[in-house]
Amino acid sequence: MPVAEKIQGFIQRASWIREMFEAGDRLRAEVGPENVFDFSLGNPDVEPPVEFKNILQELAADKTPGLHGYMSNAGLPETRSAVAEYLSDEFGLNFSSDDVIMSVGAGGGLNVALKTILNPGDEVIVSSPYFVEYNFYIDNHGGEIKVVDTNPDFTLNLKNIEAAFTGKTRAVLINSPNNPTGVIYPEENIRDLSALLEGISSKVGRPVFLISDEPYRKIIYDGVVVPSVFAHYKHVISVTSYSKDLSLPGERIGFLAIHPEVPEKNLLLGGLILNTRIIGYVNAPVLMQRAVARLQGKSVDIGIYKRRRDIFVKGLKECDYDLIEPQGAFYLFPRSPIEDDVAFTREMQKENILVVPGSGFGKPGYFRLAYCVDEKMIEKALPGFKRVRERLK
Amino acid sequence: MPVAEKIQGFIQRASWIREMFEAGDRLRAEVGPENVFDFSLGNPDVEPPVEFKNILQELAADKTPGLHGYMSNAGLPETRSAVAEYLSDEFGLNFSSDDVIMSVGAGGGLNVALKTILNPGDEVIVSSPYFVEYNFYIDNHGGEIKVVDTNPDFTLNLKNIEAAFTGKTRAVLINSPNNPTGVIYPEENIRDLSALLEGISSKVGRPVFLISDEPYRKIIYDGVVVPSVFAHYKHVISVTSYSKDLSLPGERIGFLAIHPEVPEKNLLLGGLILNTRIIGYVNAPVLMQRAVARLQGKSVDIGIYKRRRDIFVKGLKECDYDLIEPQGAFYLFPRSPIEDDVAFTREMQKENILVVPGSGFGKPGYFRLAYCVDEKMIEKALPGFKRVRERLK
Repeated sequence: MPVAEKIQGFIQRASWIREMFEAGDRLRAEVGPENVFDFSLGNPDVEPPVEFKNILQELAADKTPGLHGYMSNAGLPETRSAVAEYLSDEFGLNFSSDDVIMSVGAGGGLNVALKTILNPGDEVIVSSPYFVEYNFYIDNHGGEIKVVDTNPDFTLNLKNIEAAFTGKTRAVLINSPNNPTGVIYPEENIRDLSALLEGISSKVGRPVFLISDEPYRKIIYDGVVVPSVFAHYKHVISVTSYSKDLSLPGERIGFLAIHPEVPEKNLLLGGLILNTRIIGYVNAPVLMQRAVARLQGKSVDIGIYKRRRDIFVKGLKECDYDLIEPQGAFYLFPRSPIEDDVAFTREMQKENILVVPGSGFGKPGYFRLAYCVDEKMIEKALPGFKRVRERLK
Repeated sequence: MPVAEKIQGFIQRASWIREMFEAGDRLRAEVGPENVFDFSLGNPDVEPPVEFKNILQELAADKTPGLHGYMSNAGLPETRSAVAEYLSDEFGLNFSSDDVIMSVGAGGGLNVALKTILNPGDEVIVSSPYFVEYNFYIDNHGGEIKVVDTNPDFTLNLKNIEAAFTGKTRAVLINSPNNPTGVIYPEENIRDLSALLEGISSKVGRPVFLISDEPYRKIIYDGVVVPSVFAHYKHVISVTSYSKDLSLPGERIGFLAIHPEVPEKNLLLGGLILNTRIIGYVNAPVLMQRAVARLQGKSVDIGIYKRRRDIFVKGLKECDYDLIEPQGAFYLFPRSPIEDDVAFTREMQKENILVVPGSGFGKPGYFRLAYCVDEKMIEKALPGFKRVRERLK
């Protein structure tokens, strides 16, 4: 066998994803791609801000020697410093450039963070529904995932989290605004979780980390504020990327930030920087580091996503889908009208509509819609949603 | 403790590297950076080819939507296809775009390859001297490194490799042109190694892979040809990057290529693509994928490196250093005049010369010189090399 046993198992278990993609390709071939309503992909379709394109042109024209060379594994000093300044403003804390490590997207950053802190068999608590790549990221570095349920409104259930703690718990990993629900965990969630982590860390005598995966932090609506994870706790590693807010997912640029006042900071930083190197990332792509240094606080036009959310939520409610109106990210996570969410997905395909079953996020009985598509497509798809809802009454 | 035990151990063991860097920084502060002769870094100083800069400007000006979005984890079809065409020409085999997976540099590619094939405890044979990051890359995925000696001329010693095989051997990892020696493993090395791997794979009933790390393949002199690793064996994964031949190390762009006729190819490809995603790379940086698609076969001006090699080799031989004149890469690996190569490194620092001890490449008693510096610096440093040589007679 040419691949490791575990990898072969992963490939087999991922076969339903491949089937779903194949079903989509088959549909596109049958009815034409313009007649397929694809809500399955979280690939931002809104173009990067015009400032990005201008800066990219300036950088491309720059003839300074060494622009594409290696730098410190942690990233360019000027980029780390620009990020630190932005974070200091955002969170009212004094971040220095040392507290920021540039990463190959948030996926890269999460792997660096997990490899840094996990001893073999250490556990990481995740609240469902969740981005299932976390399973792999935690397993990559010898950890074990412990999945607990959220509340019915998809906010964190602190009792469930508390009950999942064991002597091996090393971190709680959260994602807000959340993929797949779009829900933002409220301030009291973060405060209570911080207090819980503080208490348990003291009790077990080693820090339990709060890892916060925040790539949707700027994709928010209705004037909400995403609570700071740094406000009540110090063993925090925040991980994010510019994939969603600048629409640059293919460029793989993001960063990790640690709390400026975390104890034994140099050791933690040393571990994060070492792992950036030894997992093979070496450094985050340098041209994009130069670009984002000049784009702090910028984002794509969020109004575009908001209009889509409003149309989609209204339309789905009108044909009697049970869903929570989310205030962030670009996903909806309605309840499936039938228990079997995978069967529901197949039913939707009959209307040329592609959605992802909740099982793909550890939450059967629901389905995810990504609205990274033109609002006209949403409007054109709504009658199909209605027909399926009526058929499945 | 905020970091995993293993990571803390790694940080401690890497302390001599930090000391070396600190010694360099101290020297630069004391005598001025222009008076420090730094041969310690393999960071290409030759600028990328002018075609690269032109293409980058065109890409930056391109307003086509979706240019910075996600694509298949394996990379852009047009880039994979351009690479496949180039490889087909170079190796006289029929590579298709499926046989090529774009990666986040060669470091990323090696991690993807190793994670794909290694079961826990599987062994990987490496010939010393070698790039010591391999220790980490193999350990990252549960493997064990087995280091064997090369011949006195730094070519592969097949007897040593054969003797290192056990039932757990999963791969032999080679690097030619080699870092740190600059030596190119000759055709008969590759042929004999292939025959050995063929025989052992049959005997143990599972394929033993040849992983070939080839980022210096185009940095070669004197009209030599780097032998093809695809010529005599099919369980080959070649890994490379554009870091050295296009001088783009900070941009993290490279690829993996497999033999077009490898058995169970779809399973191997499935594993490689899955791991590209789940180690967190997701995909290789997309703007650079677009750039390198149009730069196949291009490289920096190799003549610059050749002149430096010639000056350096001649100068060192004149003051009686024992070294092999290499035909590739941009490194020299002379014997240390004293057994203790770390002590020799400190002696060189007294002349404001920074070199890396052979111990840093698993080969005590030698030292590495990277000539990614202006030839004037080499000339100015030679008297210092001479003085040290005389002091240590």
